[in-house]
Amino acid sequence: MSGKAVEKAVYLGTFAHSKSLKELEIAHDAAIFVDESGKIVAVERGVADEAAAKSFFPKLNWTESQEKPIQIIKSKEEQFFFPGFIDTHIHASQYPNAGIFGKSTLLDWLNTYTFPLESSLSSLPTAHRVYARVIARTLSHGTTTAAYYATISVPATNLLADLCLAAGQRALIGRCCMDSLAPDYYRDAGPEESIAHTRATIAHIASIDPTHAIVKPIITPRFAPSCSSQLLTGLGKLQKETGLPVQTHISENKREIDLVAELFPQSKSYAEVYDSHGLLGPKTVLAHAVHITDEERALIKERGAGISHCPVSNAALSSGMAAVRTWLDDGINVGLGTDVSGGYSPSVLEAVRQALMCSRNLAMGEGGEEAERRKLSVEEALYLGTLGGAKVVGMEGRVGAFEVGMEWDAQLVGMEEVGLEGGFEGADGGAVDIFGWESWENKLAKWVFNGDDRNTLAVWVRGRLVHERRS
Amino acid sequence: MSGKAVEKAVYLGTFAHSKSLKELEIAHDAAIFVDESGKIVAVERGVADEAAAKSFFPKLNWTESQEKPIQIIKSKEEQFFFPGFIDTHIHASQYPNAGIFGKSTLLDWLNTYTFPLESSLSSLPTAHRVYARVIARTLSHGTTTAAYYATISVPATNLLADLCLAAGQRALIGRCCMDSLAPDYYRDAGPEESIAHTRATIAHIASIDPTHAIVKPIITPRFAPSCSSQLLTGLGKLQKETGLPVQTHISENKREIDLVAELFPQSKSYAEVYDSHGLLGPKTVLAHAVHITDEERALIKERGAGISHCPVSNAALSSGMAAVRTWLDDGINVGLGTDVSGGYSPSVLEAVRQALMCSRNLAMGEGGEEAERRKLSVEEALYLGTLGGAKVVGMEGRVGAFEVGMEWDAQLVGMEEVGLEGGFEGADGGAVDIFGWESWENKLAKWVFNGDDRNTLAVWVRGRLVHERRS
Repeated sequence: MSGKAVEKAVYLGTFAHSKSLKELEIAHDAAIFVDESGKIVAVERGVADEAAAKSFFPKLNWTESQEKPIQIIKSKEEQFFFPGFIDTHIHASQYPNAGIFGKSTLLDWLNTYTFPLESSLSSLPTAHRVYARVIARTLSHGTTTAAYYATISVPATNLLADLCLAAGQRALIGRCCMDSLAPDYYRDAGPEESIAHTRATIAHIASIDPTHAIVKPIITPRFAPSCSSQLLTGLGKLQKETGLPVQTHISENKREIDLVAELFPQSKSYAEVYDSHGLLGPKTVLAHAVHITDEERALIKERGAGISHCPVSNAALSSGMAAVRTWLDDGINVGLGTDVSGGYSPSVLEAVRQALMCSRNLAMGEGGEEAERRKLSVEEALYLGTLGGAKVVGMEGRVGAFEVGMEWDAQLVGMEEVGLEGGFEGADGGAVDIFGWESWENKLAKWVFNGDDRNTLAVWVRGRLVHERRS
Repeated sequence: MSGKAVEKAVYLGTFAHSKSLKELEIAHDAAIFVDESGKIVAVERGVADEAAAKSFFPKLNWTESQEKPIQIIKSKEEQFFFPGFIDTHIHASQYPNAGIFGKSTLLDWLNTYTFPLESSLSSLPTAHRVYARVIARTLSHGTTTAAYYATISVPATNLLADLCLAAGQRALIGRCCMDSLAPDYYRDAGPEESIAHTRATIAHIASIDPTHAIVKPIITPRFAPSCSSQLLTGLGKLQKETGLPVQTHISENKREIDLVAELFPQSKSYAEVYDSHGLLGPKTVLAHAVHITDEERALIKERGAGISHCPVSNAALSSGMAAVRTWLDDGINVGLGTDVSGGYSPSVLEAVRQALMCSRNLAMGEGGEEAERRKLSVEEALYLGTLGGAKVVGMEGRVGAFEVGMEWDAQLVGMEEVGLEGGFEGADGGAVDIFGWESWENKLAKWVFNGDDRNTLAVWVRGRLVHERRS
């Protein structure tokens, strides 16, 4: 797939995408025109069929010939185009442990399950096997952009970038920086090595994708407890020098917060640790933030940093429930992260679903308006998984919705219609059952709650077809 | 499928099942011998292959001939046999609304979404379409036994029984009794009608399955708020007369509890409402019980009633988090319910998963031992979905595990092994990725957290093949 050149194409039929947090637009008989660079050049309404779509070609200066026809991809009954999902926090290297966490919480989980696995990916054949599968899996779940954590290994991190580029998955690639409080078998030797190794992956990615059209490096201090102050200072300088984005963890777990307070007694808060080292800015992605204080929230808002909400992980490791509504009310940018393998699922759709559940868990015991306020709607959760995520990873205006000038990062979603007799007929149409009397809003809700990768029939990144459903 | 006679068969390979709440046994090179009545007649260990399995035939007085060979079904690599799931609480009639609940809570959810849908199933073609699909779906998810709520309609409830029997799904079939506080368009005219209509479905089921080998009636007062005291009294008498099981709801939602206190001022508690009407006994299945008091817990334990824990529903409708560990410590029988469509998923595996998450949500904010205590293990959650459920629906010793004398209600589970190159190859093997280095305990955890109906390759009830995976 990856080798295929992108051609002009028209996407025709039903589209759903977020206009804002509150507004999810569903348009029928629409047409989206995508050029050879993968950009949306026109969005038209009231386009009933292929002939109508073609009538726009002259206006766009598009010509087709017998040898070079322009492909028109039409959604069928119970199908719609939806923006590709944006996973703002996923540890590619931890994928083989998805579902394996027992009763652990963050700090013992790291030592018991995570560091041994990450360390094993210094073997490149292992890294290749794991990373190739993560990319194939996440693409199959409709993830068109992923902010990946790799490991400390430079060659394996570079390999992840190579594989994303080859598969055509948009990705931020982060080599984990960690020179403290990690096992001897898995840590950077010191701040200098950590920074030098990070520069090596930055250089590699610049060499394979100079414009960062698909893959881009992201500066990745693992989290404050595993970074010396010197390392954080160096990474802050590196950010200033390169202008690259930054990703890290914050306030996932209470014991972690206590540890940070011990390790950085000069900082007033966890957020301030990053801020005082030049690592809290508009290009920073903070994962979790479950237990941040009001002061930290204000600081995050002031700096323009984004938060990656990881509801599956936060429940699995019993970290806590994040007050997403409060962040949104503050105007903080919020996206969703699968946080594999703290989170058990590589599917952003599962994160959408569990963000809804998390907000309902937070509403329990609250009456009336406050309970209502805390609950996210299906539309809001889908926004977090697409447009909200785009803002968090610094790709606002480029991906996350279907607007002229944005790139065609999309998935074709299809659901099964139940026959009149009710039994199964024919091939596996996935786990969502449409009876035909549902409103489109309710069809989307059905997809959100029972959908899976079977409903993601095709996936495009920058106009290129990067996945088709296996059957 | 349904018409096929059951033949003797041997199941060979890897098996997993619960011996008790704490102990999940995984056996390799085992063989289970099932006779024409669908009963397990022998379980043998150290059976390496088909020849070894056949060597047991003389001991069992089994003979095979060229015309009538005995089928040996062997699990392959990364496959295992597992008991069929038992869904102790599912509203078959609400299935078309799975995933559709907005921000509602119990009482407004009933009026907005539920009663209109249930009422529409008085149309038999609609009921046929919905019920046939529920049965196909739940079988595909490995549900071999379901405690169904139908609607108030006698013909539609009878149809559900007919369809379960034809499909071979073991089921308890409950006509909803409700003569109070329900909309005019959807309620029993009074207690006499409610009881007469219930008797009609009991008679019908006796006529189609006289020994209740597959389908059995269950007396179903919807929940206390929708039943007059006269109706509850009549149903209590009917239970005494028939010895049939009872299912109802209890303490799902705080406003519901207040309503019950208003409606039944003479009762000290919600549980006492049922108890004082002769409806709380060893054959009673109580759904939810989220907010039961210590006194109610003691009463439930004393009466030997079982609880259907419905974690997906309780989160979706923000009802609350059930203290399952406390119930288990008390020795109360606990099973899992999908509670479609308060719960969005018809999959008991999803209920297993969310029971694990619910217990972890309850552990948040608790330190040390208390947090550990609240968390369920994968083994415990799987017990709830099988053997625990069997006890709740009065089928202990008959289904839920693989022991001699029990019936062969089982599923063959299979997972995909990742190739050395990591990419997708061949057909869709489901969403679980096995790398090959996992322990079997971890393979089961991977199934629990990322598995779906694609991993359920085949399903048997009472020795009969009732589902094979669609591809």
